[in-house]
Amino acid sequence: MNFPDLLEERWRETGSLLCVGLDPERAKLPVHLRQRPDALFEFCREIADATASWACAFKPQAAYFAAEGAEDALARLIEHLRERHPRVPVILDAKRGDIGATARQYAREAFERYGAHAVTLSPYMGGDSIEPFLEHPGRGVFLLCRTSNPGGDDLQMLDAGGERVFERVARLAAGAWSGADRAGRVGLVVGATYPQELARVRELAPGLPLLVPGIGAQGGDLAAALAAGCRRDGAGILLNSSRAILYAGSGTDFAAAAETAAKETFEQIRALRPSAGARG
Amino acid sequence: MNFPDLLEERWRETGSLLCVGLDPERAKLPVHLRQRPDALFEFCREIADATASWACAFKPQAAYFAAEGAEDALARLIEHLRERHPRVPVILDAKRGDIGATARQYAREAFERYGAHAVTLSPYMGGDSIEPFLEHPGRGVFLLCRTSNPGGDDLQMLDAGGERVFERVARLAAGAWSGADRAGRVGLVVGATYPQELARVRELAPGLPLLVPGIGAQGGDLAAALAAGCRRDGAGILLNSSRAILYAGSGTDFAAAAETAAKETFEQIRALRPSAGARG
Repeated sequence: MNFPDLLEERWRETGSLLCVGLDPERAKLPVHLRQRPDALFEFCREIADATASWACAFKPQAAYFAAEGAEDALARLIEHLRERHPRVPVILDAKRGDIGATARQYAREAFERYGAHAVTLSPYMGGDSIEPFLEHPGRGVFLLCRTSNPGGDDLQMLDAGGERVFERVARLAAGAWSGADRAGRVGLVVGATYPQELARVRELAPGLPLLVPGIGAQGGDLAAALAAGCRRDGAGILLNSSRAILYAGSGTDFAAAAETAAKETFEQIRALRPSAGARG
Repeated sequence: MNFPDLLEERWRETGSLLCVGLDPERAKLPVHLRQRPDALFEFCREIADATASWACAFKPQAAYFAAEGAEDALARLIEHLRERHPRVPVILDAKRGDIGATARQYAREAFERYGAHAVTLSPYMGGDSIEPFLEHPGRGVFLLCRTSNPGGDDLQMLDAGGERVFERVARLAAGAWSGADRAGRVGLVVGATYPQELARVRELAPGLPLLVPGIGAQGGDLAAALAAGCRRDGAGILLNSSRAILYAGSGTDFAAAAETAAKETFEQIRALRPSAGARG
């Protein structure tokens, strides 16, 4: 099943808009796991198994594995996710960006080596840096658009002829970069910390899936993000939470604590999300 | 020795402005190597040993190793380069870009795990996505500025208040993102295919090292790139060539063919480069 269908079905069947981010930082892991050689894999697997019911997607973060030389653990983790939770799409957060033959190698990395359903990319190099990823049938990409960090202003907020750079990215993603036959395969990353800009992106890209980091530990306003980012049908958005779930507990009961945190976030989102048809 | 000192010394001692790009694509390797399990490492090691005398830097491309799950070969390659060619700086071409704790993981990947002297980054997420890399003393970064591909126009050429986005990147890199105590540690990537924009970047960032892909196989005009990109002292630029050197030969003599190609490029550059003081 291709990425857009998998995601739409997940949204519909569970009502979940929560993306569980898997960013395993060894120094933050429960003490009993921290020193084990395969700690990153074991920790993420237990978190994922405990939170899957409340999740519309998983988002493993490549950097944490790369820093430790643990690509093999990342590959086994995604294999586990796909086997054990086949209805939950996996978005590899890698923020790759290159061109031509090199982009094709990164697409092989994300989709063939790791088997992710979708991958995050930087849009700075333009449309031909995205194309090689879309040549993999049914896979998805999420392009950085308006990021949740203060430095995001440096380029993304520049006014380019009456339109800011992040708006241009949104417009290109919804138009030229998507093309007619790729509905739902091109999404955008927009931080929850900027609900006004999130609303603007939703306006420019009414149908695109939006991956929204910045709730939970980063302090974004959940109600505002939901009001701004949901599609008219009340779905269309993946609210990512990593640290608030991963490190909800610090003892041997960390997976149960993570499940409680995920369930609570799921319920907060359900209480606050606009009902289908309420927007627009 | 830190990256800027190493690079300046290399420019001065060898007169070379040639950066040898190590982008090992298995399907393009000489037949006798192609099927060997450690082919990526062996190929790059032989190319590097054959071309080092003509090189001011090596630039291994992470994507080719990542696609094959060969990070270990990349680590051993950089270890070999640093031991065998300690006066040639190594720039890891990874085009990473993330924030906060995640950027710190990518910095660990580039500088601690792989031991690169410098790394390429995307500037889209702004200054705070670059900072964690500069916290590693003496290491360098090269920020994508004006890339050599057609899609580079999509964002980089947007006019933002009388200044195009790539010009803003150049100005920030030379100013706020460098700071007072980081001379030579922040560089820019500017394609040889756009000599006018290369000249503009040199104007905005008179002292920054410029990594310039697009000569050789990509067809950029060497004379125009040198005239546009060199500093006043005739150095300051790394002209990257990958495919034209790597695949100069296709038989068992591939390393000798690579050396000939590197030496010829070195000599073409020497004949065309402006002499010290000739510019400005």
